[in-house]
Amino acid sequence: MEKIRIGIAGYGNIGKSVEAGIRQNDDMELVGVFSRRDPGAIKTASGAPVFPLSEAAAKVGEIDVMILCGGSLSDLPEQGPLFAALFNTVDGFDTHAKIPEHFKKVQQQAVAAGKVCIISSGWDPGMFSLNRLYAEAILPEGHSYTFWGKGVSQGHSDAIRRIAGVKDAKQYTIPVAEAVAAVQRGEAPDLTTREKHQRECFVVLEEGADQECIEQEIKTMPNYFSDYDTTVHFISQQELDREHGGLPHGGRVIRSGLTGWNSEHKHTIEYKLTLESNPDFTASVLLAFARAAYRLNREGVSGAKTVVDIPPVYLSRRSAEEIRQTMI
Amino acid sequence: MEKIRIGIAGYGNIGKSVEAGIRQNDDMELVGVFSRRDPGAIKTASGAPVFPLSEAAAKVGEIDVMILCGGSLSDLPEQGPLFAALFNTVDGFDTHAKIPEHFKKVQQQAVAAGKVCIISSGWDPGMFSLNRLYAEAILPEGHSYTFWGKGVSQGHSDAIRRIAGVKDAKQYTIPVAEAVAAVQRGEAPDLTTREKHQRECFVVLEEGADQECIEQEIKTMPNYFSDYDTTVHFISQQELDREHGGLPHGGRVIRSGLTGWNSEHKHTIEYKLTLESNPDFTASVLLAFARAAYRLNREGVSGAKTVVDIPPVYLSRRSAEEIRQTMI
Repeated sequence: MEKIRIGIAGYGNIGKSVEAGIRQNDDMELVGVFSRRDPGAIKTASGAPVFPLSEAAAKVGEIDVMILCGGSLSDLPEQGPLFAALFNTVDGFDTHAKIPEHFKKVQQQAVAAGKVCIISSGWDPGMFSLNRLYAEAILPEGHSYTFWGKGVSQGHSDAIRRIAGVKDAKQYTIPVAEAVAAVQRGEAPDLTTREKHQRECFVVLEEGADQECIEQEIKTMPNYFSDYDTTVHFISQQELDREHGGLPHGGRVIRSGLTGWNSEHKHTIEYKLTLESNPDFTASVLLAFARAAYRLNREGVSGAKTVVDIPPVYLSRRSAEEIRQTMI
Repeated sequence: MEKIRIGIAGYGNIGKSVEAGIRQNDDMELVGVFSRRDPGAIKTASGAPVFPLSEAAAKVGEIDVMILCGGSLSDLPEQGPLFAALFNTVDGFDTHAKIPEHFKKVQQQAVAAGKVCIISSGWDPGMFSLNRLYAEAILPEGHSYTFWGKGVSQGHSDAIRRIAGVKDAKQYTIPVAEAVAAVQRGEAPDLTTREKHQRECFVVLEEGADQECIEQEIKTMPNYFSDYDTTVHFISQQELDREHGGLPHGGRVIRSGLTGWNSEHKHTIEYKLTLESNPDFTASVLLAFARAAYRLNREGVSGAKTVVDIPPVYLSRRSAEEIRQTMI
């Protein structure tokens, strides 16, 4: 069997999880990792070679799909269009407000190069986007909700770590149980930001730091914490490493809606993820969409795509016949 | 706005729910209902005209999508290919074992006629099929489970009603809570038929019928009940009508899987439906896929399709731009 030749651009959490995930997809093989760092200083877990990111263009004939594992803030806005001119790509661009802009830039390059480039894959955006769309299309008269967690938010953990006097920190986003229950019962409540999620922080202080001041600074931080009920725990580095070393996450998309001549029947659609490793799961989704990008491109398709543009059958290793026999 | 002109073939539970559902989709309009019964004897809830099923061919230019609402046992195997030669169609063919055969027959006609015909839509097959496929593609190393209920099984209710001495009956399929919980915890248990679902029956007896004999006959009925723990309650017709008049249903597709170099991270994907009206929800799914059939056909696509072949974006009334702006 001819394997799908995968390249990984960016060797952080997601890049490493993509590398590990390839072993579970026997129709794929890893060609190499591309990094801005000194390739000589990186040893990959799989032993795959490391190349300078700037020399990726030299590998055009050797890679079927480049999986872009950089950050959404500065890496992907630049690398998305750049790599779309060279390879089929998949990225997990997750700055929701800038998706249309990112799409447009990737689209220009992908169309010109005849490549399929799937942006904003992963779980949110990604699987949650798909479920928001399916649920709304099925129940036009209804209300949709997205809850995140319980899980570690990297952005919020970083925000705490930037405070002077903080040595280390981990932040959990926690959905408010009563809000989830009301939505599941189909009550279609109006929920404020504070009513939907809580934030729980575990903080390690630098020697001599002012605990009360720092707790206040966290709780009042605009955008990140001021709109939420936030709990702050101060713990030792040992406890943080021991109890909060993982990157679990998850969440749910719930839509409740009404049908019938008099809207007399209530229905609830719920999609729920419980993830022990956010980067591993994100990488697993990216790999499934890498398969789709490869196959679509082999059929002559090109252009930027999001997850909702992809016929689900393209994600599966199974043939269409086998799917009809065993999964429908 | 040009509306999608819908025809309904078969005016039973599903056909009536499709009729009611059209009002929630302002890009659709109902042209008429087609029935094998005497059209003069049918009064539609919407006031839509009723035509003889045998004269559907005369309406070829007036209907964009015909929604086939007959039964899977004898109606759809015949009507599927027949209507595929005339219209874009959507059906809810749900005899899982015969889907490949049904697909092949519809495919021949749909390709020849240049129509898009989506078979086996609804929730299972349909939305559950989609979720089985997505979840397996994302977590290749894992186990998938489908639980149905709590909900009314029409087939099992009918089977009880066919017993001599039974006047009326309703059967609920109930997932075993411990089994669902073990699957949700990612334990990937091996479950027998008996361990997954229970059956609860509410039976109204004819005057003078032998209660014990009938309870025994239900519990030992092969295929339907003998492999399950079954509870039988004998009640009055009044109580049956009052307490068990609805057609609720639902269920879940759950996949748990492992990721990481040493399969060290557990993940669970769960898709759950809670439906007050099985036919209403099924009809709502059929209508969303009718939109997709119409749009795909306008783009020159033809042939038989299942839900996994359809790019999700085709189900939504929103434009691709709007979806990228608001739902991804």
